[in-house]
Amino acid sequence: MSKEKEYTAVRKILEKEKNIILLSHINPDGDSIGSLAAMARFLIKLEKEVIIALTDKTPERYAFLLEGLPTVDSLTDLKGKTVIVLDSSDLSRIKTFPEVRHASVLVNIDHHVSNKKYGSINLIDDSAAATGEIIYTLINMFPGMMDTEIAAALYVAISTDTGSYKYDNTTSKSFAISAELIKYGFKIGTLSAKIFDERSLAATMLIKEGLETIEFFAGGKICCMTISREIFERTMARDEDMDGLINYTINIRGVEVGVLFFQQPDGREIRVGFRSRKIDVSQLALKLGGGGHVNAAGCSVAGTFYEVKAKVLNLVQEQLKV
Amino acid sequence: MSKEKEYTAVRKILEKEKNIILLSHINPDGDSIGSLAAMARFLIKLEKEVIIALTDKTPERYAFLLEGLPTVDSLTDLKGKTVIVLDSSDLSRIKTFPEVRHASVLVNIDHHVSNKKYGSINLIDDSAAATGEIIYTLINMFPGMMDTEIAAALYVAISTDTGSYKYDNTTSKSFAISAELIKYGFKIGTLSAKIFDERSLAATMLIKEGLETIEFFAGGKICCMTISREIFERTMARDEDMDGLINYTINIRGVEVGVLFFQQPDGREIRVGFRSRKIDVSQLALKLGGGGHVNAAGCSVAGTFYEVKAKVLNLVQEQLKV
Repeated sequence: MSKEKEYTAVRKILEKEKNIILLSHINPDGDSIGSLAAMARFLIKLEKEVIIALTDKTPERYAFLLEGLPTVDSLTDLKGKTVIVLDSSDLSRIKTFPEVRHASVLVNIDHHVSNKKYGSINLIDDSAAATGEIIYTLINMFPGMMDTEIAAALYVAISTDTGSYKYDNTTSKSFAISAELIKYGFKIGTLSAKIFDERSLAATMLIKEGLETIEFFAGGKICCMTISREIFERTMARDEDMDGLINYTINIRGVEVGVLFFQQPDGREIRVGFRSRKIDVSQLALKLGGGGHVNAAGCSVAGTFYEVKAKVLNLVQEQLKV
Repeated sequence: MSKEKEYTAVRKILEKEKNIILLSHINPDGDSIGSLAAMARFLIKLEKEVIIALTDKTPERYAFLLEGLPTVDSLTDLKGKTVIVLDSSDLSRIKTFPEVRHASVLVNIDHHVSNKKYGSINLIDDSAAATGEIIYTLINMFPGMMDTEIAAALYVAISTDTGSYKYDNTTSKSFAISAELIKYGFKIGTLSAKIFDERSLAATMLIKEGLETIEFFAGGKICCMTISREIFERTMARDEDMDGLINYTINIRGVEVGVLFFQQPDGREIRVGFRSRKIDVSQLALKLGGGGHVNAAGCSVAGTFYEVKAKVLNLVQEQLKV
């Protein structure tokens, strides 16, 4: 096991401390909620007093993971407390909890290469596809503690962060851990339908409305979708209903760059999402004050749809050399 | 290894025979094309003369797997020949090749529980999620033969038949085999995007048009989509573009049965697809002259849209007891 020293340090904390507060990042995803749920259920079995402090609203698809667990949505005095932060590269991603700095023990467990090592103990393994993989290794240091419910939560963590074993971050270890987890007998079909396939009626209607707006440029290499405030409000959508919508642009065969323009509530700013097959869209986003990864990036640009689209499309065409 | 005798029998055939013809079923899917491609590339490395005989058109998303391989689309005299049929439960699913019965050696390799054991050698393992898992075990009986290209083809076979490790047929072994395959270094992100995410513009437009037709019954428990000939032809769709379209009905939160009505070219018949979360829609389909599985079934019903929808909806409501 690599990082053996760090794992041992965390194991000792878990053995010793009686009261533990678990945290994760804003805009929680499957890895953060799955890791929180797995860790909480495991610690409860170890007879610890556990509280999960939620930084942000849990998306409906993951809410079942936290059922029956003690959660709070604010924290006050953390002096003398033990806090474990999961899946967060940076304390600024725990925005409602500046208190965290005052914890007496601050354990930072994460898989992001960009992790700032803000903990008093830092267990950072950037070879893991998900924080759930690190939690899996940690729980296995305590024989007999894994069970169906914990395994299901870790499966959610790993499968969502790898896009159901489809992204390039999927490793042999992601598959090997999943081969062990599924032996605990959760119903993978029911579970994966809930986390990957189910969507609200509003999200479904956003797909229809979004597809009505698609436009092609550069001979079909660029595909744009536009979600106005009017569409968003008419479909009664919530922000989480926008998840994955941009993929309908890049998934069209022949498209090299997909762009989603999403008007923000004040009407004066447009959130711009980029997806690409090859070119580095993080460079594009950076020029516009945003950031991201090579194949997925985003930014916010002030202006009308007309202004922002003209500006963004010029930059995309420039980078695509079309 | 279970089925050791059968594996050994097939291994001996592969060692002995010099000329081998590979076949799979009509409406080829990822498992059939992936298994054909893996088996062909492996046999070519064993210095065999190999021909893949294609029963049907290969869907665009899988076409790359067969690049550079010797394929034919018809076969004549098979007397004295060795034929291996992959992933086909029944010879009636090799419709253009009645000749197959005359092969001197007919090897039947499959994972369907319903397999008719029509071969002179039958290697049937219904615990495998995909025929690709059986081929994996077979190729591993020949040390040093696995390579990146074969591993990628087997990954396509296994990942497509398990819905990218999301269906209930996914086993610990499916994950464990995938953990080994990915070590051969194919780019899982690029590959899975091609087989799962990319869709034609026509398929994208079918989603939009389909979503415009959705109707709810029984307080949102039943969701129907209707694809008329007019829509199908206007979007310039091909049959493979309909794949997965029905999922937009059942994936809406709260829907218990999703139904897709698809008008056939003669205009007189409607193909009806069913998806369900809990109730057994194969029973419904059976009553209408079709068949399928508990959660996914289908049939064809003669009549106008009006007649067929009335009939089908009555049956669904009856079964749902609403």
